[in-house]
Amino acid sequence: MESFQLLQFEPFKSAVDPTFWHQLGKRKLDVYQLDQSERRIRGHYATATRATKSVERAIAAPAQLTVDGEAFEEAASSAARHGRPNTVAVDGTLLNTNTIEEFKTIDKQALLRKAGEQVATAIESGEAWRQPALLCTFITLAFADLKKHKYTYWFGFPALVAPQPAQIRSWSRVDAAWSKAKIAALHVAIDVYSQQQHQGAIPPFFGVVEEGDAVTVIDLQAANAPHQLIIGFVDPSGLENHPGWPLRNLIALLARYFTRTSIRVLCYRDTPGTGEGDTFSALAEIAFTPSANVHEYKVVGWEKNTHGKAAPRVADLGGMMDPRRLADTAIDLNLKLMRWRLATTLQLEKVASTRCLLLGAGTLGSYVARCLLGWGVRHITFVDSATVSFSNPVRQPLFNYEDCLEGGRPKAPCAAANLAKVYPGVNATGHTLRIPMPGHPVTDDQQTQADIKTLIDLIAGHDAVFLLMDSRESRWLPTLLGAHHGKIVINAALGFDTFLVMRHGVPGSQADAPIGCYYCNDVVAPTDSLRDRSLDQQCTVTRPGLAAIASAMAVELLVSILHHPQGANAPPETDDTPEAHDKERPLGVIPHQIRGHLASYRNLLVHGPAYDRCTACSSKVWLYWTALRMPA
Amino acid sequence: MESFQLLQFEPFKSAVDPTFWHQLGKRKLDVYQLDQSERRIRGHYATATRATKSVERAIAAPAQLTVDGEAFEEAASSAARHGRPNTVAVDGTLLNTNTIEEFKTIDKQALLRKAGEQVATAIESGEAWRQPALLCTFITLAFADLKKHKYTYWFGFPALVAPQPAQIRSWSRVDAAWSKAKIAALHVAIDVYSQQQHQGAIPPFFGVVEEGDAVTVIDLQAANAPHQLIIGFVDPSGLENHPGWPLRNLIALLARYFTRTSIRVLCYRDTPGTGEGDTFSALAEIAFTPSANVHEYKVVGWEKNTHGKAAPRVADLGGMMDPRRLADTAIDLNLKLMRWRLATTLQLEKVASTRCLLLGAGTLGSYVARCLLGWGVRHITFVDSATVSFSNPVRQPLFNYEDCLEGGRPKAPCAAANLAKVYPGVNATGHTLRIPMPGHPVTDDQQTQADIKTLIDLIAGHDAVFLLMDSRESRWLPTLLGAHHGKIVINAALGFDTFLVMRHGVPGSQADAPIGCYYCNDVVAPTDSLRDRSLDQQCTVTRPGLAAIASAMAVELLVSILHHPQGANAPPETDDTPEAHDKERPLGVIPHQIRGHLASYRNLLVHGPAYDRCTACSSKVWLYWTALRMPA
Repeated sequence: MESFQLLQFEPFKSAVDPTFWHQLGKRKLDVYQLDQSERRIRGHYATATRATKSVERAIAAPAQLTVDGEAFEEAASSAARHGRPNTVAVDGTLLNTNTIEEFKTIDKQALLRKAGEQVATAIESGEAWRQPALLCTFITLAFADLKKHKYTYWFGFPALVAPQPAQIRSWSRVDAAWSKAKIAALHVAIDVYSQQQHQGAIPPFFGVVEEGDAVTVIDLQAANAPHQLIIGFVDPSGLENHPGWPLRNLIALLARYFTRTSIRVLCYRDTPGTGEGDTFSALAEIAFTPSANVHEYKVVGWEKNTHGKAAPRVADLGGMMDPRRLADTAIDLNLKLMRWRLATTLQLEKVASTRCLLLGAGTLGSYVARCLLGWGVRHITFVDSATVSFSNPVRQPLFNYEDCLEGGRPKAPCAAANLAKVYPGVNATGHTLRIPMPGHPVTDDQQTQADIKTLIDLIAGHDAVFLLMDSRESRWLPTLLGAHHGKIVINAALGFDTFLVMRHGVPGSQADAPIGCYYCNDVVAPTDSLRDRSLDQQCTVTRPGLAAIASAMAVELLVSILHHPQGANAPPETDDTPEAHDKERPLGVIPHQIRGHLASYRNLLVHGPAYDRCTACSSKVWLYWTALRMPA
Repeated sequence: MESFQLLQFEPFKSAVDPTFWHQLGKRKLDVYQLDQSERRIRGHYATATRATKSVERAIAAPAQLTVDGEAFEEAASSAARHGRPNTVAVDGTLLNTNTIEEFKTIDKQALLRKAGEQVATAIESGEAWRQPALLCTFITLAFADLKKHKYTYWFGFPALVAPQPAQIRSWSRVDAAWSKAKIAALHVAIDVYSQQQHQGAIPPFFGVVEEGDAVTVIDLQAANAPHQLIIGFVDPSGLENHPGWPLRNLIALLARYFTRTSIRVLCYRDTPGTGEGDTFSALAEIAFTPSANVHEYKVVGWEKNTHGKAAPRVADLGGMMDPRRLADTAIDLNLKLMRWRLATTLQLEKVASTRCLLLGAGTLGSYVARCLLGWGVRHITFVDSATVSFSNPVRQPLFNYEDCLEGGRPKAPCAAANLAKVYPGVNATGHTLRIPMPGHPVTDDQQTQADIKTLIDLIAGHDAVFLLMDSRESRWLPTLLGAHHGKIVINAALGFDTFLVMRHGVPGSQADAPIGCYYCNDVVAPTDSLRDRSLDQQCTVTRPGLAAIASAMAVELLVSILHHPQGANAPPETDDTPEAHDKERPLGVIPHQIRGHLASYRNLLVHGPAYDRCTACSSKVWLYWTALRMPA
């Protein structure tokens, strides 16, 4: 008789690829959001020799269970879904908590118990014979700090522990007992079985029938019979005398159904279909106590951390990410968080892809650009004819003192360059361009024609046009062009303590009663309003807070329009419009005009119809204007 | 007989010191504003030798009339008011137009004519005998472009032109006719006369009585007599045969009153009281036609520009100014323009000198700081415990991408440094400090005590405290301290599409019904609200435009409070409060709380009283808290 010894198992070590965290982060942000339901994930393990490709090194290699970016079913390749060649697929459960406190306080013993009960149920119901993979599972408890790119996690590998521990009766390398030919036959048999039954993946548990040097591999289910055969399992362990973790639940199954009290086990540690007869696999005889009900077993299996303590680990991905990517994901995160709880129907992608043209890179233009960036807009074009002057930076949050030196940098390209310093991923450009204005003298006809052409191209090439200039007449041509090209036109204008933020209607559209533009309710044609103005009339003399308020509202108005199915033609609403309070509408009222009064902190929502003889947006003026522009 | 020749006069050249423009700019901005009444100014001229200190160079020196920073009566030193030693004071009229168009289109001939009429009236009334300075005047037409530091101007030196021109009968240097002793006596006589009668300044016109080598100088009035004497004038010209411009109107006076048709004129070109007998002065005999009414004379005198054309000149001071000073004046200009027409009672100096403490250098803190800068606030202190993260720059307009690299710069000092890049004149500092919060664990007692001390010192050292953090409980200690120190406390907090901007009352103040603080209407004591929050609750998940709006209103609320005589104790107003619409009040309503709703673009003005058992601002809590803090 041999001296018996307690059977000890080498535990799994979780090996988490960064792609797994990346995918989890993405899902959390876009899909799961605040839903912390359990998710099915899939890991893999291989034999120690396959993992290390060397028998010698296999001894020292840990028994790894790997999860990566394909662990999530919908992200998995076909191979990952069905099993990867020569690896064992292991199904697991992910529980990703919303807060770190929840991660810390959740009852971990209960979690593992629950996973173990599932294994026990599979055994008691006999389902484990038909689907042996049910015996080998894992759970992952995680908290994803998307802001800091830190993932706190803990893996559990539920194992049923019999009241009476199993013992090793014998342990020997296969090559000590079998001929080379028989070993080679084993490799081939497992390979054929994997290929035919499991698309190349090795099933974790199987039966082995030997007849002389011939070896056949059969389903575990078929091995549930009283005749003499070997039960095989794919062993991640490389340690002498210590098989890997999957054997624990296999023994629980056998102890429940077999009347024998010992079995021969093949700890398969090789790569199927390879080797001329070399092997690192072992044959063991294991003794166990039959059991009537595995539900009575204890469950163990929380992984120890690198210090050998039963405690979570942290994966800090921030340090390994490219800073620009870090910026991208951080900004994306902030936006998407809005969708988690507060505005689930936000169409952030639509907002992000809106190309915005900002006519005027002054106080309004700077604030509008920053607010667009905050909403995730990535294509921002500035137009301005001026240079940065010393009074600008304290009111125009895209310029610094140094931009004023040596006569001042041209405002439009300077604004674009400084916006890129805020967020390098922005597609910002600036055009130094004087917008032709009615009533102003044309001093250079050729230049004016070129300016008009540039303006037409710019308006045609953008989705939304912001009118952010400081005179009435400079808004005329862009209004005309915006109307003709059917663009969203947002107009903002400041008084001393009042502001107007409005959207222009799209004339000729299918809207029942199209709304007007800036000029529709105006009987005076635009003319030179800059001449003969004293300094306080030439400069924009406003309460300093006004521009920030008006600019923010202009951008919020654009984003609201983008969320309406009719876009720029969305019917004008006031606070009394019932639709404005529809829960499906994330952003509330879509007014035509907001007239703000800072002296009373009051905003008035008003609207006015389009005027078919409007001096700016009517088709008559368009026809007249284009006729005039034709060369003689 | 000599051959007679027409008498020609060397015109004045205006010499404007930059200090004159500086003073004009200051006055326009702060005093005159849109009032374009004529202003009295004073210039000076000296003899050519005094100006050049060299007889040789005097010939080539222009006949300059100088105006400088002391030209404005209220800015003038005593000497400038009464006359500067050895120079002649010349009174002038400044007409500074509000617009360049007005400058261009004003009837310049009429302007000069009017000035000439005043001279003619002084002659006809005889007043010119008593006040000869009335014969020598000037007018300055100007337009000050304060934004570009460009001054367009034109000087006119009104001269009456007789129908029959005067002629030179003879011209000789004084030293050709007089002995050295007599010349020395002349210098002494003029000096004595200037010192005794004119505080050192030389009167432009005087009489000279000669008896042998003795010379006496008398008032011009005394020279209006039929006996033989010389009429003297201080001559700015250095040209042979061409006396300076002041002689023109003197001849008009003499032609009106003298029955003689010629006089001897001393063109005094020296420096009184100097020289042992050297002289550069001339004696001329001038013939003229008596006149009955000088009002019939033509008036000439608009200065020619450097190209010899009768046209205005431009002084561009922008290029010679220190860029930092340019920034200062430009910012100052923008603010002061508000007072010209729109808000005449604005107390910009009070706003500028308010020391502001910003608790929180995030989205709200960045916008608040920029808006304070826009209002001219110069003392801004940030407090924050965090570092700049990648999601910050697109929402927090004081940070750039580069501030996020390598773990991120500490936010408070980074915000201060970046604010100084906007405007180098700002006094901005940043303190990295964790504000102690009730309900949060104290991990380092010593550090917490030090943090409390720093916070107390900071609050005591500022006039206004902004609460711009992202948790409820972090506002507690600053509320307590702000209340105790009687500071203005402005609180801003964001929801997803709602915001609260409020001011705290000052408990224990003399206000009839003090208004409450953030905690006054709250039955729940502040505790840890950050624990156990999911990511969307930890981050400030708000519509991107919201922070700009709330921050601007927070700053506007502060500025409103500063304008109220009761300051932080100003009674809470809503739009219905009649006083809010007082014309003398530049900024309208001073609410207690603004509750903003972006989904409906509505702001609600509400107010609530202070609660004498408030967990934050009541004196009971203060006493309890200070007692607790005492070392055992």
